[in-house]
Amino acid sequence: EGRGGGVVDGVKVPVVRLNLGEIAEATVVAVLPVCGAEEREKGVEAAPWESGCKGDFGIVEAEKEWRRWVVLPAWEPVVRMKRGGVVVAFSDARALPWRVNRWYKEEAILVVVDRGNKEVVSEDGFYLVVSEDEMKVERGLALKEKGVKESLGNVVIVVRPPRDDKENELADEDWE
Amino acid sequence: EGRGGGVVDGVKVPVVRLNLGEIAEATVVAVLPVCGAEEREKGVEAAPWESGCKGDFGIVEAEKEWRRWVVLPAWEPVVRMKRGGVVVAFSDARALPWRVNRWYKEEAILVVVDRGNKEVVSEDGFYLVVSEDEMKVERGLALKEKGVKESLGNVVIVVRPPRDDKENELADEDWE
Repeated sequence: EGRGGGVVDGVKVPVVRLNLGEIAEATVVAVLPVCGAEEREKGVEAAPWESGCKGDFGIVEAEKEWRRWVVLPAWEPVVRMKRGGVVVAFSDARALPWRVNRWYKEEAILVVVDRGNKEVVSEDGFYLVVSEDEMKVERGLALKEKGVKESLGNVVIVVRPPRDDKENELADEDWE
Repeated sequence: EGRGGGVVDGVKVPVVRLNLGEIAEATVVAVLPVCGAEEREKGVEAAPWESGCKGDFGIVEAEKEWRRWVVLPAWEPVVRMKRGGVVVAFSDARALPWRVNRWYKEEAILVVVDRGNKEVVSEDGFYLVVSEDEMKVERGLALKEKGVKESLGNVVIVVRPPRDDKENELADEDWE
């Protein structure tokens, strides 16, 4: 569970729930620039492209200054991007093109995007686009049907927040 | 070993060797702005003061843009600083006021500094200063003797790089 979004409905993009302890599981972490969904293409395009770790201490040295950053576990799809990775923060999951349940909708999500792969090549793939003046994740198939050939980038992973303990508290109350 | 620097010679500042796997051991990490020792007070003073983690995903949102960042395990002296933390990268350990051995001298170090504590209050404390146009770590006692009352900040921890496997390889060769 928590990774279920990745298989439901033929979705080929991994959806993972962040476990802060997990930032630990690998010996390396990924540090990526963050922009808000409300900044639309401006934020996505402005974020630094280089955010690799350098030297003994894994210092992140971007080619330009940036204000917001996030540390993610070194998940394979994240680490595979050599450069051009950016994280778009959405306040809820309505931007996703697959059906999500109520709880999921009320959660913030992070969409990790590879700006080095903008071309809409795979019908099964997911891409970040601006549609009706809003940032959205769209299926390659849907974009191809509309004749859209270029996106802001390929979506490599969708991250849900760490599980909220309040959910469990409520469940306990229900049992009383 | 590796933490030995913290006790040798009455030194009261923890000296730790970074173990990248350790970034994992805590459920939280600290992300701090980095400047180079060669930038002197300019870099130290220019680095953002706010680098706290916000929201579910622990996104770092600084009050200004910055190019270099480092992820450290949530070591207590690092986490204790609420704001004003900055990391100064030195190419070797000559900037430290205590005697260091040959290997130590050839290693880069990171000095984590609390800019919120600039006043030279403790004789046992260590402070970051610019002396003879070079950035250095000095003992509170030495500064007080010179009548220096203000520093660039109190040194909260000194970080040595992860152990180099080559040291072990050489040792193996020695045995052949």
